[in-house]
Amino acid sequence: MKKVTIERRILNENDLLAAQLRSRFAAAGVLCLNLVSSPGSGKTSLLERTLERIADKLPLGVIEGDVQTDNDARRLARFDVPIHQIQTGGACHLDARMINRALEQRFDLSDLKLLFIENVGNLVCPSSYDLGEDMKVVLVSTTEGDDKPQKYPAMFARSGAMIINKIDLLPHVDFDIDTAIAHARVLSPDIRAFRLSCKTSEGLDAWCDWLLEAARGKSA
Amino acid sequence: MKKVTIERRILNENDLLAAQLRSRFAAAGVLCLNLVSSPGSGKTSLLERTLERIADKLPLGVIEGDVQTDNDARRLARFDVPIHQIQTGGACHLDARMINRALEQRFDLSDLKLLFIENVGNLVCPSSYDLGEDMKVVLVSTTEGDDKPQKYPAMFARSGAMIINKIDLLPHVDFDIDTAIAHARVLSPDIRAFRLSCKTSEGLDAWCDWLLEAARGKSA
Repeated sequence: MKKVTIERRILNENDLLAAQLRSRFAAAGVLCLNLVSSPGSGKTSLLERTLERIADKLPLGVIEGDVQTDNDARRLARFDVPIHQIQTGGACHLDARMINRALEQRFDLSDLKLLFIENVGNLVCPSSYDLGEDMKVVLVSTTEGDDKPQKYPAMFARSGAMIINKIDLLPHVDFDIDTAIAHARVLSPDIRAFRLSCKTSEGLDAWCDWLLEAARGKSA
Repeated sequence: MKKVTIERRILNENDLLAAQLRSRFAAAGVLCLNLVSSPGSGKTSLLERTLERIADKLPLGVIEGDVQTDNDARRLARFDVPIHQIQTGGACHLDARMINRALEQRFDLSDLKLLFIENVGNLVCPSSYDLGEDMKVVLVSTTEGDDKPQKYPAMFARSGAMIINKIDLLPHVDFDIDTAIAHARVLSPDIRAFRLSCKTSEGLDAWCDWLLEAARGKSA
């Protein structure tokens, strides 16, 4: 019982701080997206391909979350955008306190229109931690099996968009895109689905068009 | 501080129970392997291919861990071996208490030589929970990126074997097997590496030969 109570208190504190962050993003007119997935689904590759297309079109920033290493931030260092690496030191998720500290250290929200948060690669724990984002965007790659929404329902239920990545590998794997989307829509009926490949760039334009429209549509 | 103290107490309790489980496995001469990986790396496919090859060669059992659904246990139901599904109901890892309960409900250790535990798909949290296993076996698929050992070091440091799955996809992805193994050996110098494909069956014989030898080598 004690464990449960304390866990609830920690989550409540996180929710309070996340609500404050959400108010700050709203006041500044910054669209904040929380990218979540298994390790290796392609979150950083998606950011690379996305920044190539839109980094000069509107002011954006990136918060990178990893258990260890700053590999991902280094992959994005060639872009002229503010990037902040959080190393959780073993923790399996980002929390609102880490985001709050990153904002203090690295970002001026009045200079941004779009903020990406790349969460720790984990389809379970990050679903419980609100970061103040406008939307969770869950990635799943075609190599992971189309039953992932069923097996990790909390994450899909809390996501507003779903990216099916690595569609270039479809000829080589057993993955039915429609099945995956149908499973996700049971949990999140209005989830928006994008099909793309960070390798061939197929489908990236539709994703970037939506991003630009959503970011520009959020005014302070 | 309170959170840290309680977490430590929970881990200590888990370690105590895991030590008891380890003694029971040793007394019964049962080799227990804890399979860990990201979601979608192919743990269940590996069990399917493995059971096809060795289920008639020695008595074995399987404990399936999932956040939700019994999809994985159903995939293995065609084999004439005892299978027990644990649904963690949101928890991101298996713990020793769940394994203890599964043994009570479903298994007679004196009838077994080999017990597989398929953990929840998560490269972070299951690394902290000893289940009494002889060895953690970590799977990584060639689609996930060869930097996974660096990025999830706790899991690789605590694993005695590493399976690189989906080698049939190597021509289509950027993944260097030697790099992945080298990164893993920084963390776990003696880690045994297997390269295989559950789709083409390449490499499965070496894995199964090793399994049979290890299981037969563990006497009560």
